[in-house]
Amino acid sequence: MYSAIKEEAYACNMLLPKLNLVLFTFGNVSVADREKGVFAIKPSGVPYEELKVDQIVIVDFDGNIVEGKFRPSSDTKTHAVLYKHWDIGGITHTHSSYGTAWAQSLRDIPIFGTTHADHLTKDIPCAAPMKDDRIIGNYEYETGFQIMDHFQENNLDYKEVEMVLVGSHAPFAWGKDGHKSVYNAAVLEEVAKMALLTEQINPQAQRMKESLINKHWDRKHGAEAYYGQQ
Amino acid sequence: MYSAIKEEAYACNMLLPKLNLVLFTFGNVSVADREKGVFAIKPSGVPYEELKVDQIVIVDFDGNIVEGKFRPSSDTKTHAVLYKHWDIGGITHTHSSYGTAWAQSLRDIPIFGTTHADHLTKDIPCAAPMKDDRIIGNYEYETGFQIMDHFQENNLDYKEVEMVLVGSHAPFAWGKDGHKSVYNAAVLEEVAKMALLTEQINPQAQRMKESLINKHWDRKHGAEAYYGQQ
Amino acid sequence: MYSAIKEEAYACNMLLPKLNLVLFTFGNVSVADREKGVFAIKPSGVPYEELKVDQIVIVDFDGNIVEGKFRPSSDTKTHAVLYKHWDIGGITHTHSSYGTAWAQSLRDIPIFGTTHADHLTKDIPCAAPMKDDRIIGNYEYETGFQIMDHFQENNLDYKEVEMVLVGSHAPFAWGKDGHKSVYNAAVLEEVAKMALLTEQINPQAQRMKESLINKHWDRKHGAEAYYGQQ
Amino acid sequence: MYSAIKEEAYACNMLLPKLNLVLFTFGNVSVADREKGVFAIKPSGVPYEELKVDQIVIVDFDGNIVEGKFRPSSDTKTHAVLYKHWDIGGITHTHSSYGTAWAQSLRDIPIFGTTHADHLTKDIPCAAPMKDDRIIGNYEYETGFQIMDHFQENNLDYKEVEMVLVGSHAPFAWGKDGHKSVYNAAVLEEVAKMALLTEQINPQAQRMKESLINKHWDRKHGAEAYYGQQ
Repeated sequence: MYSAIKEEAYACNMLLPKLNLVLFTFGNVSVADREKGVFAIKPSGVPYEELKVDQIVIVDFDGNIVEGKFRPSSDTKTHAVLYKHWDIGGITHTHSSYGTAWAQSLRDIPIFGTTHADHLTKDIPCAAPMKDDRIIGNYEYETGFQIMDHFQENNLDYKEVEMVLVGSHAPFAWGKDGHKSVYNAAVLEEVAKMALLTEQINPQAQRMKESLINKHWDRKHGAEAYYGQQ
Repeated sequence: MYSAIKEEAYACNMLLPKLNLVLFTFGNVSVADREKGVFAIKPSGVPYEELKVDQIVIVDFDGNIVEGKFRPSSDTKTHAVLYKHWDIGGITHTHSSYGTAWAQSLRDIPIFGTTHADHLTKDIPCAAPMKDDRIIGNYEYETGFQIMDHFQENNLDYKEVEMVLVGSHAPFAWGKDGHKSVYNAAVLEEVAKMALLTEQINPQAQRMKESLINKHWDRKHGAEAYYGQQ
Repeated sequence: MYSAIKEEAYACNMLLPKLNLVLFTFGNVSVADREKGVFAIKPSGVPYEELKVDQIVIVDFDGNIVEGKFRPSSDTKTHAVLYKHWDIGGITHTHSSYGTAWAQSLRDIPIFGTTHADHLTKDIPCAAPMKDDRIIGNYEYETGFQIMDHFQENNLDYKEVEMVLVGSHAPFAWGKDGHKSVYNAAVLEEVAKMALLTEQINPQAQRMKESLINKHWDRKHGAEAYYGQQ
Repeated sequence: MYSAIKEEAYACNMLLPKLNLVLFTFGNVSVADREKGVFAIKPSGVPYEELKVDQIVIVDFDGNIVEGKFRPSSDTKTHAVLYKHWDIGGITHTHSSYGTAWAQSLRDIPIFGTTHADHLTKDIPCAAPMKDDRIIGNYEYETGFQIMDHFQENNLDYKEVEMVLVGSHAPFAWGKDGHKSVYNAAVLEEVAKMALLTEQINPQAQRMKESLINKHWDRKHGAEAYYGQQ
């Protein structure tokens, strides 16, 4: 019944080590079936080299297990909250080195060049670490709201900005399906690396000019986009 | 009719992931047949692992598609302008990490050592980001002119300096054929990495002395060059 | 008689090059059989690609060779001291790049994020280089005591903090068995890399807040831990 | 007649790409037969993936070709000078990233830890770039003398310090045979990387204490060395 999203979730999770986005089990991907109101997610703590399709867990948008013998990723409730409130089809969470370092630095990643602007027109946002009541409470559930609150307070559109850093923690990325969320997680890591190198080469480096940001965004995502095949 | 340049363009594009110069589809190589006035270039947005020779697109030096069912790289017009005005046989564009970081920093890469001088006697130039009228206009077409203008204003010879950084964007490299352009793109990335490391080790590091620059250039490219086989 | 720990020691040592934690022979793993009061350790100076199970050496907790034709790792006495005084089942020593750089810097690795807090709630401690009498004396034996003294003086619990930097030298990690010690050595290296990157991105970066440290530790190691499978 | 050194030179050259010490053809290894007064060296500019044993060139200690159809490495005369004056059996030259960056920085690599002290008790020396008369003259020949002069002026022993940085250029390493010279080139690169990281983590980092330097050197190279097998 859920084999399509289980297969995609398996395939997407296996991309994380291939793209050098995880050490051991420090990451997870989920894929949603929005019509059925469920998502497929990696079981918690299972090494990638041992992961099998039938270990993938099916969970609803309130975080309840629907199918599966394994315990789902410890970050499952964060995924559930985002699926419940945002119209997205896949979520990737990693502790990739550069993205995590920016998250630990509590800084947004400045938009320095076209590699970044090809994917979003804003700095990659860094949500503040949660207040203590949220941490002590339903932590992973609140992480989802911490992300959404940050987007709302900063007028960010989750359809355009498909990635975030959670302060003192690590990146989350999402997209229309699982593969797009993995793609975004890899873009975030590469942009995070380039941004640090840019500041090391030129500590006075400035955000790129708005006209160039908009041009690169438009050519890939605008009404008359001309990147890729139709 | 164009099978030779299509085959070389395919082979050269496949070198980019092998040499760690691209993430996903962030790069492209073209190969020209100057007699026929056309070049072969990667189709836009096609992943390297799925790329096939018959997807390569043939374009003339004004940027018109001559043969091929796929949409060519979004950077095609930049390639066309350079082929039209410069006597070169191959062009490589990447978003390689270190080269792109220097481009985002808006700095020329200083010539610190013989690895650099074996390939060119000048700092690797960084062209400024374009003025808004160029960006809003025919962007990729103007990128070619931005590069050529920078060479002209700085008295640089494209036959000696076979690479450039486009400010806020990324590197372009070229050469007598496709393989040489890929080679130059890889040299640029390695030299860019070493130059950052050099400044980190010694913030007062100076450009190497002229006599040594000229010696290394001459032994590889001078009238009595003695590097490589005849 | 010792085949179980020899097999595990062999397998764990072979993980070091796979995890990019060693160059040449700069590392070693041992695995203890606490009931028999012995441990299995890599022979000294044997390249990983030539290592065989029957070359593994069996040593008692005083550092005496019990079985094996090869000379054991030059760090054997450090392992022996730790096994004798601490209830642990495996030890990994590497010269991994980032961990070693922190050791050479004589600094503890600050706890900047959840990747760190998922594994320990303290900064990763750096023991000072030994006083000259210890160095000139029974050096590797004293290295074990230097580590234990540092834990005692700083009220650190080796059951929670399963890793240490030895100043001017390199990391040691341990755990309930050999595989856990290798896992900890890899975690140390990744956390060490992220911590340097964090300080480069934000020189004013602060340790993460205590409530978040405790939450991440508890969810993985607390009485009601919910990470991984039961 | 020279097949032994040709085979070893081939094998050693092929280690350079495997150990990530070269991009393209930016490096070479030679192996000497001191009784016959010749050495075997890589042909100039031949890509590693195309290199064959019978392309290896035999050269005498004055730099004259003794056997081989190919032009030898452009650095051949530097090798010849060192073999003529020093009792060594192998030489490796690379443009490895970190070693080259230190050479471009014109700084010795400080001895920060035991990884370094296991191999030499001194900072890794950086010879100054040559004076113009040497550069304009017999450049590669003079490079050999520039290295030897630096050792003499600084009372360095080439039997202990088996590596050097040539300022504005790159590293050279040597040893009793070809494999030892490649090993030393790889050690230099790793130590160079760690030293930069150390200064980034702690800009006030100091050279390690003399007693610890001597202990680590002695345990590997002293009269009562106890590292490795007999």
